Amino acid sequence: MKQINLALLGMGRIGKIHFNNIQQHFPHAKIVTVGDPQIDETSFKKQYGDVFISNDPNEVIERADVDAVLICTPTSSHADLIQKAILNGKHVFCEKPMDLSLEKTAALSAMAADMGIKLMLGFNRRFDPDFMEARKAIMEGKIGNVQIVKITSRDPGLPPIDYIKNSGGLFLDMAIHDFDMARYIMGKEVVEVYARGLVLVDQAVGEAGDIDTALTTLIFEDGTYAVIDNSRKAVYGYDQRLEIFGSGGMIQVENSLHNRNIIFNEKGIHQALPLDFFMDRYTKSYLKEMELFIDALLNDTPMPVGGYDGYQATRIAIATRKSMEEGRSVRLSEITIKLKTSLNSMQLNEQTSI
Amino acid sequence: MKQINLALLGMGRIGKIHFNNIQQHFPHAKIVTVGDPQIDETSFKKQYGDVFISNDPNEVIERADVDAVLICTPTSSHADLIQKAILNGKHVFCEKPMDLSLEKTAALSAMAADMGIKLMLGFNRRFDPDFMEARKAIMEGKIGNVQIVKITSRDPGLPPIDYIKNSGGLFLDMAIHDFDMARYIMGKEVVEVYARGLVLVDQAVGEAGDIDTALTTLIFEDGTYAVIDNSRKAVYGYDQRLEIFGSGGMIQVENSLHNRNIIFNEKGIHQALPLDFFMDRYTKSYLKEMELFIDALLNDTPMPVGGYDGYQATRIAIATRKSMEEGRSVRLSEITIKLKTSLNSMQLNEQTSI
Amino acid sequence: MKQINLALLGMGRIGKIHFNNIQQHFPHAKIVTVGDPQIDETSFKKQYGDVFISNDPNEVIERADVDAVLICTPTSSHADLIQKAILNGKHVFCEKPMDLSLEKTAALSAMAADMGIKLMLGFNRRFDPDFMEARKAIMEGKIGNVQIVKITSRDPGLPPIDYIKNSGGLFLDMAIHDFDMARYIMGKEVVEVYARGLVLVDQAVGEAGDIDTALTTLIFEDGTYAVIDNSRKAVYGYDQRLEIFGSGGMIQVENSLHNRNIIFNEKGIHQALPLDFFMDRYTKSYLKEMELFIDALLNDTPMPVGGYDGYQATRIAIATRKSMEEGRSVRLSEITIKLKTSLNSMQLNEQTSI
Amino acid sequence: MKQINLALLGMGRIGKIHFNNIQQHFPHAKIVTVGDPQIDETSFKKQYGDVFISNDPNEVIERADVDAVLICTPTSSHADLIQKAILNGKHVFCEKPMDLSLEKTAALSAMAADMGIKLMLGFNRRFDPDFMEARKAIMEGKIGNVQIVKITSRDPGLPPIDYIKNSGGLFLDMAIHDFDMARYIMGKEVVEVYARGLVLVDQAVGEAGDIDTALTTLIFEDGTYAVIDNSRKAVYGYDQRLEIFGSGGMIQVENSLHNRNIIFNEKGIHQALPLDFFMDRYTKSYLKEMELFIDALLNDTPMPVGGYDGYQATRIAIATRKSMEEGRSVRLSEITIKLKTSLNSMQLNEQTSI
Repeated sequence: MKQINLALLGMGRIGKIHFNNIQQHFPHAKIVTVGDPQIDETSFKKQYGDVFISNDPNEVIERADVDAVLICTPTSSHADLIQKAILNGKHVFCEKPMDLSLEKTAALSAMAADMGIKLMLGFNRRFDPDFMEARKAIMEGKIGNVQIVKITSRDPGLPPIDYIKNSGGLFLDMAIHDFDMARYIMGKEVVEVYARGLVLVDQAVGEAGDIDTALTTLIFEDGTYAVIDNSRKAVYGYDQRLEIFGSGGMIQVENSLHNRNIIFNEKGIHQALPLDFFMDRYTKSYLKEMELFIDALLNDTPMPVGGYDGYQATRIAIATRKSMEEGRSVRLSEITIKLKTSLNSMQLNEQTSI
Repeated sequence: MKQINLALLGMGRIGKIHFNNIQQHFPHAKIVTVGDPQIDETSFKKQYGDVFISNDPNEVIERADVDAVLICTPTSSHADLIQKAILNGKHVFCEKPMDLSLEKTAALSAMAADMGIKLMLGFNRRFDPDFMEARKAIMEGKIGNVQIVKITSRDPGLPPIDYIKNSGGLFLDMAIHDFDMARYIMGKEVVEVYARGLVLVDQAVGEAGDIDTALTTLIFEDGTYAVIDNSRKAVYGYDQRLEIFGSGGMIQVENSLHNRNIIFNEKGIHQALPLDFFMDRYTKSYLKEMELFIDALLNDTPMPVGGYDGYQATRIAIATRKSMEEGRSVRLSEITIKLKTSLNSMQLNEQTSI
Repeated sequence: MKQINLALLGMGRIGKIHFNNIQQHFPHAKIVTVGDPQIDETSFKKQYGDVFISNDPNEVIERADVDAVLICTPTSSHADLIQKAILNGKHVFCEKPMDLSLEKTAALSAMAADMGIKLMLGFNRRFDPDFMEARKAIMEGKIGNVQIVKITSRDPGLPPIDYIKNSGGLFLDMAIHDFDMARYIMGKEVVEVYARGLVLVDQAVGEAGDIDTALTTLIFEDGTYAVIDNSRKAVYGYDQRLEIFGSGGMIQVENSLHNRNIIFNEKGIHQALPLDFFMDRYTKSYLKEMELFIDALLNDTPMPVGGYDGYQATRIAIATRKSMEEGRSVRLSEITIKLKTSLNSMQLNEQTSI
Repeated sequence: MKQINLALLGMGRIGKIHFNNIQQHFPHAKIVTVGDPQIDETSFKKQYGDVFISNDPNEVIERADVDAVLICTPTSSHADLIQKAILNGKHVFCEKPMDLSLEKTAALSAMAADMGIKLMLGFNRRFDPDFMEARKAIMEGKIGNVQIVKITSRDPGLPPIDYIKNSGGLFLDMAIHDFDMARYIMGKEVVEVYARGLVLVDQAVGEAGDIDTALTTLIFEDGTYAVIDNSRKAVYGYDQRLEIFGSGGMIQVENSLHNRNIIFNEKGIHQALPLDFFMDRYTKSYLKEMELFIDALLNDTPMPVGGYDGYQATRIAIATRKSMEEGRSVRLSEITIKLKTSLNSMQLNEQTSI
């Protein structure tokens, strides 16, 4: 078995997770170079070992020994870096979203497909073991024909207002994970959306032009639906649950808690809070998604989640924003761009990814 | 303390529950007469004791010794019986709904208010101890400002198609309980609705002109919302849950199960199913609502849930049906009738009932 | 179907439960007379209706219209009243224990058997629906061959010290319920015991010559065992749980809580406390045991729990006290009395009651 | 901060866990050599990298660059290897037990103490996050004065009979973990034991001179107690739970399950089984114990669990076996050896480790 050489771009919070996971768990993958404008070579090497470091991402992407690029930089730089990687013939793993613009998302997906470049998007929640188990049970018919999925997705607290200003808004930044989850769990395409948004957590969010609370209904091609309930703040912590109901039963995916201890005292019966945030809650999903990315490279198989999934999730996000703004349900067919032929054909090929 | 004399109309499933509850639990209330066209006097007296029986409800309502009337007959007869009771100066407890028509519902509510007649509607779920406890916690601020309530309300199985044909449809027949619950739990008025409906359980329901599956979003006056998920059939039984999320936390009301036993074997960890249906699940709520009805009569205090609540729940049901049919959100203000002055003033007085 | 006429002796806490249950739920049984030295006839009749009242239990027992006697008086009077009832040919339901002395317990059991009198003991926990369901599952082989049962039995608080002084001690007063439960759940006879006792709740208990905390191991005839953990005080309330482990799995019977609500806040996830005490926790078991008592009278079938069960539970309680005092395991065969032939034969006949 | 160089003896199941944990997680510790009679140098280096390999443990222990030795070999070799390590001035981490003989256990503990050698025993369960959290809550007084701890400890299946024959028996091989847990959780010394043992899983165990099922009562110095329930086989998997009851409340530590999904269908409500066995259930505890071992070496602080703990757990195991054989409770003071002065003083110093 050969070895995959990786370039990692962006050693922020997520970049470090991927770096450590690859170093510790995947003997057939190696990070040969790291690109990050802010990185300090000396302290990096002291902590992480001897890897080629550059403050110029171009230099890193162009290196001949690199098979694939992991893009963990801020969203605004994703599109350019994906394009450079594709043009240099490197496969790509990119944190979501590819871009805030649907056009660029589509164009890059099509370009990757045209060029034979493998492109995986970091919709990490698909690879959470509990969600995977739920999807497996659904696909095996354990709950019959699925009629509704209810997604609860609440963050433990507001991100900085500056982050929010550049985030694309709650639907594109936060709920997009849930839109992808709805497609993944139901295995069906969304055709219509209805969304409401509110500013209930902090007025500063409203002043920044965003919402912090949302309720979204997604209608699937067969008329069944998903309901997604988002909040930027739940005082009891990160709340990530699913409930899927079908003709044969129901599956609930509950939060993982800090521990499995139960305390009984004169005030009641008490359990610990859910795991704090995505880095704790989705530890295993980050590991699993990287395992599958590397496997797909080693075995030349399709990526488990790709450009078309990013395109569809972005379309849904844009549609929900429109629905909220216009106070009506919006059909996904209203959110279109001129598609190149290759993306249309990709669509057909890659639909299996949900 | 005086005694309240009651006439009970309709000895069906619900009538029997009220009859037994009153006989067994309320020493200050007495059922002095029962009216039911189908009742057999001999067998009734053998089982229930010596009570004046009539096959003519009018005769029962007019009796001088009757203080209040309990209407447990089929929906189609409610309006006439309520009117007769009001005209005879009898207080009224009526199973929901008062009528399938909003006009009659409003008119009877107004009439009762004008005549000083106390009118209570059998929105029994308000009196379920767990839901009452949840509302109490919310009103005490235990979860801060409420942002969303999610209601799961699924029946264990389809009623007969003939029942469905005369039911007024899922929204007016089944979801109306949940619309009332949403108002009760949030303590706010609904101003807009968005609903989807499907036939997923049995095509015969569709042929009968109804749906068996629905998803409803209710928007409250302050922009916050409720989501209600209905199905006529859940294979695991009667599913009646609430989840209320606010700025200070969350309350979940879970189903009561057949028992508190847990079985561990090589296949997994197993618990019993939820209680079968409303007669088991809401045993205590039927008792509590009757206790409060009798208390309100004995102490001449307002009813805990009255005509205006019925009027509002019916308006919401009509609006959701319209929303489903027209594929758009519908404002409650679109659902109007010419209100008599007295109902308008009642509205102001009785809004406290949510 | 005929009617059973009952005399109820002792209108204390438990007497009232039985009175109300019989009045409300059993049309074929009637309490025709109540005997209680402290009862006030006027106030009793006002509250409970027209029943023959006496302050002399003898008068009540001797009445010709009485078929059976319910003995709910203090323990010290049980033996005399049982004897009187037997001599008057009345069947007997007696709250546990029959007597603190094993000799009297045995003699009365034998006497009842000799005279053809049906005698049921108020080991009400056997009739708790969850425990019955557990036993049913065990008997059906759901968990294979049972290897161990663990009983947790903790009261919410100390009874008055005066009560403790006359109670016969923790083993005879409190743990005796658990000894009976162990026999019932396992369906086997105990042959050896090992017990430890402590004063941890209140030194006054020790000064009164009793313990408030105990740990008991019961060894069954086949070498398998039960562990019983008793405390007179759990700050979180009445704790009544079972865990039964066998070759095919495990059954846990959990406490019933005040409600099924779960509150999430910044401190954790919270549930309500267990039901307060036996009157709440065992509401249904009091109803069920009376139903079975009346059924056995109406149909002339054996009692579900009888004198021999009381005799065996008392033997175990005496053996555990001896074990604690002597610091060694004690075989049940050490706790003997001279048995009359009839009790020996009864023993054989009635062993099926476990 | 300096680096700790480690020699690892025994690359079996547990040895591999420690090897991987150290390679992946502890930058300040390095395994410089591995000794294992069965190891194949070529395949080892291919999988694990370039480490000095020897089939002779002596060679490994004697290497000058080794600071400490990790002993993960079969139990029968532990004592010799510990002695060699001590004589070579190497600190020691040894999987439990040090030896099946109490004399050797004591002698080696004393020898290590005399020579200033740090000795840690692999009682890994102490370092399970949930158990640590429970102990922390207890030490903080969250449940008041502890009165009883109940330990459930059941394996998913029988080990090979050959393993059992050389294991020292259930008490020394399996329950010894629970004896240590009881001391750890209660923070008190055991003074007396009462144990029962049975062959219920497989007659072959009895033919091999051992038991497969046991019930143990441990009495602490203040009269409070622990109950430990062991089985070599639970069909539903590895069952590792604690329940600790005190004057201020109760803590339960529940099993971790394969996932947090709940499936509802017409048969009931179903959850996944507990994690399979110690390698899954105690993943985090193996990591944590190694972290603390390395920390204690780096910072020259006492080991969190040492020779005296091994000595005491072994004494309890020997006492329980004696109790079972003689059918009586056994005081720990009956289980003695001639202690060297140094062990006595160590005893005083190290008692803090519980």
